[in-house]
Formats: sequence, C-alpha cells, structure tokens
Amino acid sequence: MNKKGLSVLMRTKMRPLSPVSSKVNPMATSPQERSGNSSQNDLSYTQRKFEQVRDSMHSAISISKSENLDDALDAFSEGYFSLSVEDRRKLLLMLAREYDLNRMQVRELLKQYLNLELPSGDGSKDDSQEDEGTLSTFYRLERNLRHALKPSYEVLFERLNTHPGGLKFLSNMRADILSILMEENVASLRALDSYLKEKLVTWLSPANLELHNITWDDPASLLEKIVAYEAVHPISNLIDLKRRLGVGRRCFGYLHPAIPGEPLIFIEVALMKDVAKTIQEVLWDDPPIPECEATCALFYSISSTQPGLSGVNLGKFLIKRVIDVVRKDMPLICTFATLSPIPGFMTWLLSKLASAERSDSTFRENLLKPEEEVDLINASGESASENNGMEVMLNLLTSPNYEWIHSDKLTPALKTPLMRLCARYLLREKKRGKALDSVANFHLQNGAMIGRLNWMADRSEKGLKQSAGIMVNYIYR
Amino acid sequence: MNKKGLSVLMRTKMRPLSPVSSKVNPMATSPQERSGNSSQNDLSYTQRKFEQVRDSMHSAISISKSENLDDALDAFSEGYFSLSVEDRRKLLLMLAREYDLNRMQVRELLKQYLNLELPSGDGSKDDSQEDEGTLSTFYRLERNLRHALKPSYEVLFERLNTHPGGLKFLSNMRADILSILMEENVASLRALDSYLKEKLVTWLSPANLELHNITWDDPASLLEKIVAYEAVHPISNLIDLKRRLGVGRRCFGYLHPAIPGEPLIFIEVALMKDVAKTIQEVLWDDPPIPECEATCALFYSISSTQPGLSGVNLGKFLIKRVIDVVRKDMPLICTFATLSPIPGFMTWLLSKLASAERSDSTFRENLLKPEEEVDLINASGESASENNGMEVMLNLLTSPNYEWIHSDKLTPALKTPLMRLCARYLLREKKRGKALDSVANFHLQNGAMIGRLNWMADRSEKGLKQSAGIMVNYIYR
Repeated sequence: MNKKGLSVLMRTKMRPLSPVSSKVNPMATSPQERSGNSSQNDLSYTQRKFEQVRDSMHSAISISKSENLDDALDAFSEGYFSLSVEDRRKLLLMLAREYDLNRMQVRELLKQYLNLELPSGDGSKDDSQEDEGTLSTFYRLERNLRHALKPSYEVLFERLNTHPGGLKFLSNMRADILSILMEENVASLRALDSYLKEKLVTWLSPANLELHNITWDDPASLLEKIVAYEAVHPISNLIDLKRRLGVGRRCFGYLHPAIPGEPLIFIEVALMKDVAKTIQEVLWDDPPIPECEATCALFYSISSTQPGLSGVNLGKFLIKRVIDVVRKDMPLICTFATLSPIPGFMTWLLSKLASAERSDSTFRENLLKPEEEVDLINASGESASENNGMEVMLNLLTSPNYEWIHSDKLTPALKTPLMRLCARYLLREKKRGKALDSVANFHLQNGAMIGRLNWMADRSEKGLKQSAGIMVNYIYR
Repeated sequence: MNKKGLSVLMRTKMRPLSPVSSKVNPMATSPQERSGNSSQNDLSYTQRKFEQVRDSMHSAISISKSENLDDALDAFSEGYFSLSVEDRRKLLLMLAREYDLNRMQVRELLKQYLNLELPSGDGSKDDSQEDEGTLSTFYRLERNLRHALKPSYEVLFERLNTHPGGLKFLSNMRADILSILMEENVASLRALDSYLKEKLVTWLSPANLELHNITWDDPASLLEKIVAYEAVHPISNLIDLKRRLGVGRRCFGYLHPAIPGEPLIFIEVALMKDVAKTIQEVLWDDPPIPECEATCALFYSISSTQPGLSGVNLGKFLIKRVIDVVRKDMPLICTFATLSPIPGFMTWLLSKLASAERSDSTFRENLLKPEEEVDLINASGESASENNGMEVMLNLLTSPNYEWIHSDKLTPALKTPLMRLCARYLLREKKRGKALDSVANFHLQNGAMIGRLNWMADRSEKGLKQSAGIMVNYIYR
C-alpha cells in the first residue's frame, strides 16, 4: 500500500509543521516580540539558531565519544523543533544531500570486487575447502560494500534510536519529511525517507511491540490518546469511550518500550452474536448478548497515532495478534470480521458518472442496467426523453444534504445500482494490481476476504459522503 | 570486545549442543530404542528427519504466502532442535553456503553502477536541480545493490524475528553457531554469524528493551532464571536470593517483549555508605545503614542469560539506564561504582613468571623490585642463592589449596608485589589497544575509570584462582 493509502486508512491527519514548532519554542516563531523590531536582528537570530542546530546535527553524526554524544543528540532533537518550517526543510535537505554515502569509496570497492574471480562451485566435495578460502575474500569485500553503501545519516538514525525519546523524535521528523515530499518531490529526500522507513520497519518489528489490552483501568494519559487519535468513528465523550472499553467490547494497542504510555496503533473490537450490519448496533446499542454467548469478534476501527510511521504496516500484525489472543480467551468465537468504511467509493463513482456525461454517447460506458435506469428515472420524476439514468444518479447523489436518503421512492431506486457498483468497485477496480480502495487493499493484502455489503450501515455525514452509507464486512480466515 | 571476552565477562557457560536436543525430542537422540536395533533403519530415520527439517527451512525462506509461512517457521524451529548435533551442524553449513547472496546479480549491478557518471557536484545552486535528476539513478541502483548484497538467509532471520518465539530461537541457534565456530573456523558460517549478530544488535537495541526492577514479588519463574544465570557470585539458596532482592539491594533486568518473563541480562546493586572493599560486606553482611543514608550504588554482578547474544553489548546500556533510574529515585546517591573480579590476572601473572623462569637470565624481565624479592625470599625461608624471587613467587602461588593465604609471613610479603603487578596488568597490558582483562575492557570501554584495588576482597576458591583474591572498583562518571 502506498503512503497516502495508509494515511487514508488510518485516517490520521498529517500534522502540519508549524504547530509543533510554535508549541515547543514560541520564541522562534515570533522573534519580533523579543528582539525589538529590526528585521535584520530577526534574520541573524534565526540564522544563528539554524547554524546551532546544524552544528549539533553534525556533532551527533560525527563525534565518537559516548559522553558528549548524548548532549549532541539532545541539542539536536530539542533544537530541531525550535526551527521554523522553512529552516527544518533546509536542514532535512542538507541531511539528505551532504550526509549521503561516499560514492568514490563505493566505486573503489566495486572495482576490487569485479576483479575477484568467482569460485567454480560445482559443488563437489573436494572443492568445498578451497571454496571456503576464496569465498572469505568475497565475504570480507561484501561486508565492506554493505557498510560503504550506508549513507552517513544512518549513524544519526541509529544513534537517535538508542537515545531516550529518540524513536519518537524520528517518527515526528519523518512526519515533517512526508509533508515536504507531498509538496515537492526531491530525489535525495525521497531516498532518505525510504531509508528511514526501512529502519523504522526493522525497529518497530512486531517482535519489539507489546500488545496491550486497553481498559477503563488504564491511566487517563493513555486513554486521552485513544480519544485524540480515534478518527474512524470519533469518540464524542467519556461515556462513549467507557462503552467502547466496557462489556462486550475490547480495545487493543501496540506499545513500544521506547514510547511508553502511547499506543502506536490501536484496534477496537465488538463481541457479537453475528457479524454486524450497521455501525449503529456496534457503537450505540447496548450489547444485546452476554459476552459468553458471542461467536463473532468484529473489528470496527483501527487507528494509527503516528503520522511519521506511515507505510510501516503495524495494522496487519496487530490484527493477527488480536485474533490469536481473542481465540485463546474465548474459544466460542469463530468468526473474525470487520465492519469497514469504503472511503474511496463515492469519489470513484462520481468521477465515473461525470466523465460519462462529458463523453460522446457512442463510446459512453453505461454504468446502469436498463431496469435500474427506468427505476431511477421513474422515482426521480424526470422525463425519460430529456435525461439518461446516469445524469439523474449524479444529480441525486450530489444534491445538497443527501436529500435522497429521506425519500421512500429514491432510496430503493438508488440501492440496487449503488450496491452493485460498490461491489464492482471493491472487487474489480485496481491500481497497479492492488485494490483501488485503500481500506480494501489493506484487508485483502492481509489475507481477508470481502464478506458482505451493508446498505445504510453508516448514515453519518461522513459515511454518506464516502460511500453513500454503505459499509463492508471483511472476513478474516 | 571479542566474543570470548564477553562470554568470560558474563560468565555464562556456552550451552553444549546435545542437552537441548535431548530435552526437546528424546526420540531423536536414541532412535535405537524406538525403531528396533537395525542401524540401517536408524540411519534412514535420521536422514528422513534431516530432510524434513531442511525442506521446512527451504519453505520458510522461499514461500511467499502468509498462511503457510507460519507453519513452515513452526516446522523448522521445532524440527531444528530435534536434530542431532552433527545434523544441526550440517544444516547450518548448508544455510550459510546455499542461501548466500547471488553473486552474478551483484556483479551485474556493479557493472551498471560503474557506468554511471558522478554528478559534478561543485555545490553551486544552479547544479542542484540537475544533480537531483542524475542522483535519482544513483539512489535507485544503490538501493538495488543494498538489496542484492543481502544473503538469502536474511529472509529466514527476518521472518523468524517477527514469528512468535522466533527471536529466542535465533538466539539459541546462534549459540549453536558459536559452538561450531569454536571448533572449526568455517568462513561461510563466520560470515553468517556476523550477519546474524548485526541483526540481533539492531533488534535488541536498548530502545526495544524494557528495564525491569526485579523484586521478591516477581513470579518464581522469573526469579528461578536469576538463580540459574547468576554466575559471578552464585546464589546458594532462597535466603541468599531474598537478601539480594531485599532492603539495601536492587536487581534490574532488561526484558524484551518477544521473550517475556526472562531477562536477557541483569545487574545486581548494593546501596552503601561507601564503595565496598570486599564482596563479604556486599553479599553476607546485613545492610549496615538505612537505604535513605546510602550515597553509593555498587554494582557487584552483571550476568547475561543468553549465550547466543554474545557480542551484543547490552551491559553498557543496562548500566547507563540503571544509573539514571537510581539517580532519579535516590538523589543522595552520587557515587556509582563496581566491585569487580579480575578474571585474567593470575593467568597472565603465572605465564609471565613461568616464561621468566624458562628464559635466559640476561634477557629476563624482573617483575619484582629488589626489596620485594628480599621480602619474599625471607618470608618463604628459601635460600637466596639458590632461588630468585620470581621462582619463589611462582611456587607459592601455585602451591595446593592456596596455603599462602593462611600464613602471617607470606601474605604481607606477597601483597606488595601482587597489588603492584595487578595495577600494571589492569592499566598497561593491552591487546589490540584494548585492556587485556575482559572485565576491565568492558568497564573502561563503557567510560568507567579504575578506582581502587582491594586486597583479600574475594577469598572464595574462584576469587583466589582468578586474581589471588584481589578485586577492583571501577568508578562510573
């Protein structure tokens, strides 16, 4: 899944650069108030500040003594967030370009390597001793090559990772990098980002993460993060939160030892008799059955808390582990399913309908079946001669305040084509071989199957806008 | 520090290969009892078993579908420990040789890379856009090269690391690898080991580890591990253990989320008024002062529980973090010191004395000062004309049952030269620029300084054998 896809799935907003800066060091964003009103002074102040942070970055990469290293890392990570958006951009580009790998050294090693002769290696026993000898030269050079191919900024990443607070800092810094890359595609910064992402994938391997069953007994400081980051079905108040952590519900988060008290990602589960058809039953109704009678664990929300971990697929492993835990705790539960949004459906459908309207009628693909078209035109009260079904559909779906959902005539006429087209969208619309819908791609890649489409499953403004209120159940195993 | 050094420091015995095998699957070690007494049958049984494990290893590396992968990893990791020592050796060599990197592919990429022209990069602003374009080809090729330089067995390591129980399995497998490498130096297996070690260093970075204050309230299953692995000053019974976790003492361990309930390394601390001079005061005497009056945290033991993590320096980070925690909890504590063994002193001294005895008197380095020589000869009652001081010293130190420590004459005569030579051994004897003594090297590399040598600090058999009972305080910061 691409980064944008995951950020859509996780529904976390990319935090803009400025608020962080203004929060951490208000002086940096309003130097005028401090240093009089000479813009010359401001300039030299911010310039000096920038140079300090740049120097601390250089020290953090180049010094070897362990004593000063911690100071340099502290100075850099604190200084970084006191810089303006533009200065952070400048610093990150500098890091990407000037702390890259040494290409002259790489070339030198490559030439040495090409001069080596490969051992015959026909696998006969007599050769193996001789091969070992020849190969040890290969092993040595390959090791040196691997080392030479590491950019200098790897040192900074590695050192920050083992520094208190450093992993969180790297995640925040990567959020900045992703923001910059959304604006402009700089090759060096993209290379740095892909390197950093690989590092984060290693460091945040599921083996390093602790599964935590989040309950009402957890510290408020942790629970407040759940409220802040739950973005699939926002939590409106404390009663809502308490219900989601109460009887018939579960909430699990992945915690990393270096980022205590803050789950990197969490998932909300409802224990039910059957796979839920609407989000209403899950979010607002009281659990209709005692927990011990539940046979289905329904995942109704998964949210990431770290925009800087975009592309690091923690969700897949989280779902897998939660299934294992629930299965062990409650052996009666045999169905694991989601009730998921279809965030891209309406965007796709509206653009299909609009482009059909613009194109020549001879080549136009008719998205509607003849009987659907008749039903729609009849229900809308339009004249069949003047309009075609797709125009009517486009007009109805884009009418203000989703009026169609209040009409007993329009709703059934729209239901058939919408459900059919939604199934087509989920099953057949692909981009580079992957499902076009980011959430669909996420679950299908994890090995889930599409179970059932549910009509009027999410009547919220957001649900109607994204998918005309349709939701889908993905089934795990 | 070299691997042997650390294993000496940590004083964990390299577990031999066979016990694990016999524990996990007794059938594999005694197939005779099962399958009658035909050695032909046994052979084909073990051969079949070997082939099964080899096939599961191959699947674990090569299959891509996530469903079967878990089964393959389970089959491999369970099957591996059911193999005989010799079959495990065969399998590991196969892994190192046949799942190496693809050298033809590497050569192909190298040639492509050498054909690229480096951007001029004179740093002028106008170039930077053009450079970005040229560089993106470099970035792509470098990324591909990094990938091609990864041996195929990396896939197995990565997959095991994210598999439940896999990290522990990798640590156990590496213990096997180290055992084999101690017997024979196979280049391919050494390359595999160094690759695996680098992976383990990344996965076990301190950011991934949780510091746990081990107390009497911890589960017995965890405390039993402390008893089993404490090898610096073995724990004799439950009362001894309880004292080490009681008032005036602390014990901290590093836990990894993927290896629950089993600290990878732990350190024992005594809270004292002054830096202790003998292990007696630390281990057996009741704490003479209330905790709140302590001004010194004394580290008296650090033990690793995983032979397979040899060379992964967890101790350095553990000490650093424990210092931070103690400093925060007890602000009065301002001295952080160790009371450490000097494991290599007597080996070094005896070999020096013995080689002096063998060598020509003209070139012989006299380790003793004239007055020390006189004192020694007088105290031993030998005739000065027949013996020189070094001979006398060698004889005394190698006499059975350390008789010299019970003699009021010999002890003071030996004290002066032993203390002086011990200081020289710790401060000046180096190997490749590092302190010859493994424990000294460990603490000095971590940034500690040598504080004080303590006479008759450890009168145990082990203490006398290693260092004539001398112990040393290393001071942190």
